[in-house]
Amino acid sequence: MTVLAQGARGARSEDVRRGNLSTLLRYVHVHGPTARSRLTAVLGLNRSTIGDLTGELVAAGLVREEPGRAERVHDRSSSSGGRPSYVVTPESERVQVLAVDVGVTHLTVARIGLGGAVLSRIDRSYRRGARRQRDVTATIGKIGAALLAEVESGAVLIGAGVAVPGMVRRRDGQVRQAPNLGWKDAPVGAELARALGLPVWVGNDADLGIRAEHVRGAAAGVDDAVYLSGHSGIGAGIIAGGLPLGGRAGYAGEVGHTVINPGGLPCHCGSQGCWETECGEERLFELAGRPLGGGLAGVREVAAAAVGGEPVARAAIEHVASWLGRGTANVVNALNPEVVILGGALEEVFGVAGATVLAEFEVTALAAPQEQVRIVTPHLGPDSTLVGAAELAFEALLSEPLLELGRRTAS
Amino acid sequence: MTVLAQGARGARSEDVRRGNLSTLLRYVHVHGPTARSRLTAVLGLNRSTIGDLTGELVAAGLVREEPGRAERVHDRSSSSGGRPSYVVTPESERVQVLAVDVGVTHLTVARIGLGGAVLSRIDRSYRRGARRQRDVTATIGKIGAALLAEVESGAVLIGAGVAVPGMVRRRDGQVRQAPNLGWKDAPVGAELARALGLPVWVGNDADLGIRAEHVRGAAAGVDDAVYLSGHSGIGAGIIAGGLPLGGRAGYAGEVGHTVINPGGLPCHCGSQGCWETECGEERLFELAGRPLGGGLAGVREVAAAAVGGEPVARAAIEHVASWLGRGTANVVNALNPEVVILGGALEEVFGVAGATVLAEFEVTALAAPQEQVRIVTPHLGPDSTLVGAAELAFEALLSEPLLELGRRTAS
Repeated sequence: MTVLAQGARGARSEDVRRGNLSTLLRYVHVHGPTARSRLTAVLGLNRSTIGDLTGELVAAGLVREEPGRAERVHDRSSSSGGRPSYVVTPESERVQVLAVDVGVTHLTVARIGLGGAVLSRIDRSYRRGARRQRDVTATIGKIGAALLAEVESGAVLIGAGVAVPGMVRRRDGQVRQAPNLGWKDAPVGAELARALGLPVWVGNDADLGIRAEHVRGAAAGVDDAVYLSGHSGIGAGIIAGGLPLGGRAGYAGEVGHTVINPGGLPCHCGSQGCWETECGEERLFELAGRPLGGGLAGVREVAAAAVGGEPVARAAIEHVASWLGRGTANVVNALNPEVVILGGALEEVFGVAGATVLAEFEVTALAAPQEQVRIVTPHLGPDSTLVGAAELAFEALLSEPLLELGRRTAS
Repeated sequence: MTVLAQGARGARSEDVRRGNLSTLLRYVHVHGPTARSRLTAVLGLNRSTIGDLTGELVAAGLVREEPGRAERVHDRSSSSGGRPSYVVTPESERVQVLAVDVGVTHLTVARIGLGGAVLSRIDRSYRRGARRQRDVTATIGKIGAALLAEVESGAVLIGAGVAVPGMVRRRDGQVRQAPNLGWKDAPVGAELARALGLPVWVGNDADLGIRAEHVRGAAAGVDDAVYLSGHSGIGAGIIAGGLPLGGRAGYAGEVGHTVINPGGLPCHCGSQGCWETECGEERLFELAGRPLGGGLAGVREVAAAAVGGEPVARAAIEHVASWLGRGTANVVNALNPEVVILGGALEEVFGVAGATVLAEFEVTALAAPQEQVRIVTPHLGPDSTLVGAAELAFEALLSEPLLELGRRTAS
């Protein structure tokens, strides 16, 4: 099904080895400690090739090898019974990234090791309201410095991954527009790179949510999946054919700003009747008679009140749930995913009014894509985005293990 | 940016050679006769490797080599002036496919050679109305047999590609639903394979439209593009990150059935206020006071009347144009494409009411994705879909040239 990438270059044998190093490192990063015999089977390479590749990664300090202990690994080609196999383990303490999740009402900064282990983290909460981007950057710089001070000597910091609820230019981490933070053309990538003294990659929160859920969550092993992130507005992170869908510059997924009710409410984007005007947190608060800007905690309060029988809260939840079902059907008709993950506020709405979501979904979605999709909640809970930010920061290393490590240790 | 495809296998050196054969054949299929020296430069392989690869393809009868005549190719590394380079040319007469475009009001069957040359074609027109799938299949079988009778001995028929305006299951070419044809769960792939005695691949018309425009049309060299096909309903063919977006089973792109006007008209899909209820051909005919089912010819008549000053036709065109702009903005906000191609009836509407389309688009699309997109008409005109059907049929050969050719000549 591959369509020609014009000007595609031929491949060379030396590329193969680099590709195999990447595949092996990525495998243990995702799956954790893995017996060499299993790597041989899974990667379809012979025993000595796996031994050579592992040796290179050990020498680079990216993985370590230990004799298998807890389990004895059976090799099918051998009839001599079980024999121990070396287990390849990612060097979580030695190879780390900083992961940052910038929300409208929260900020999380964490140190995450190769393999995905959260080594330490700091969480802050805020009331909603415009926060100056330079203040947020400075705060991240300070928290980041505190976390970096904990890193033992000899460890390598690959870089920082940052999640922001807005449209991010992939090339340089410029936040083009983050309406719920009140940011426009904010040089988040450049400022954080200076403040932290690290390479910084910035991504959209929903894009990073689906990335994490795809690597190690509700969409693991799935090639077509959508993460709908409900934080103030609504954004979609999309995996299509096994790859992230970013669009030309990384702005794809602004499904919260697809018109679904043209005679409806004005949207802060300048249009009218966007999906998030009916289905976003602020609409819920308004209908429930709550103060705006309550964030995830506020949504949980309304959901609890609805369950407790408060009619206004129930009506507000039902309204949002109905539009959630309709808009989810639009996404399913357009993209034919196998999984749709409802994250953030949407998870709360789905939890207390799932029947309404599904009823509206069922009348709007076409039969064929409908019968193929599961609507679920995130396996990584509220950490999908944070974990995704770490995955973003690990990506260069995972793609070109020795090249990228050389860059980082030389600097 | 690659996310792990779980269970990805390692690559081996022998794969590299097969990949390079594929890359070379695909290059001359798309670009036509190409000097060897140019292939060396473009593919980034050395001269002797290109010579070996070309030799294998010549021996298989897929390309031929001729001394460069019209132009003398200059080799930059040589200071001895120009020297002739062999030109590698696809064997269009020897390697062919059958391409079929099934429309609501038309049927086209063509013989297309490697490199994209249309060798012969037969076109039929119909009035709109339910056409039994078995009758259509029988007609294609007869026309196909007539075209196949022209094929000279020694030529190889790779298979047939078929475009249908409906949801097609990728796996077996089953048409799950083609509402405008009145088909449901129609075994088009299986029946045509029997009737033609060839391997048959079936695809959605919009998917094949974008495929053709991506390979050799308005989206050539573009990694993120959408083809909006207006034939009775509206469907989208999507290229994301250089690859076709099909979704889990190939049903993606049903943007005509995304709700955009929830209080609006009932849709034949069972939902209400779908985009195509406001923007499809039938809505245009209804508003213009024309009989339904006029197809592309009918749309052209209304467009001409609007240009000629007929108020009812003008109002009908303006209505559809306005919803076309709004829905196109939804697609652009969701996918951040570089190019949106308006095909079929939409091309006609855009031609006479482009200003209305763009005005509505501009107020609905977000600034960042808006500034990156071009809205254009197909370079291949009404043949995008037919050419895409041929590309679909060539795909197996282009991916695995020697393997697939061996299969076809052995059978």
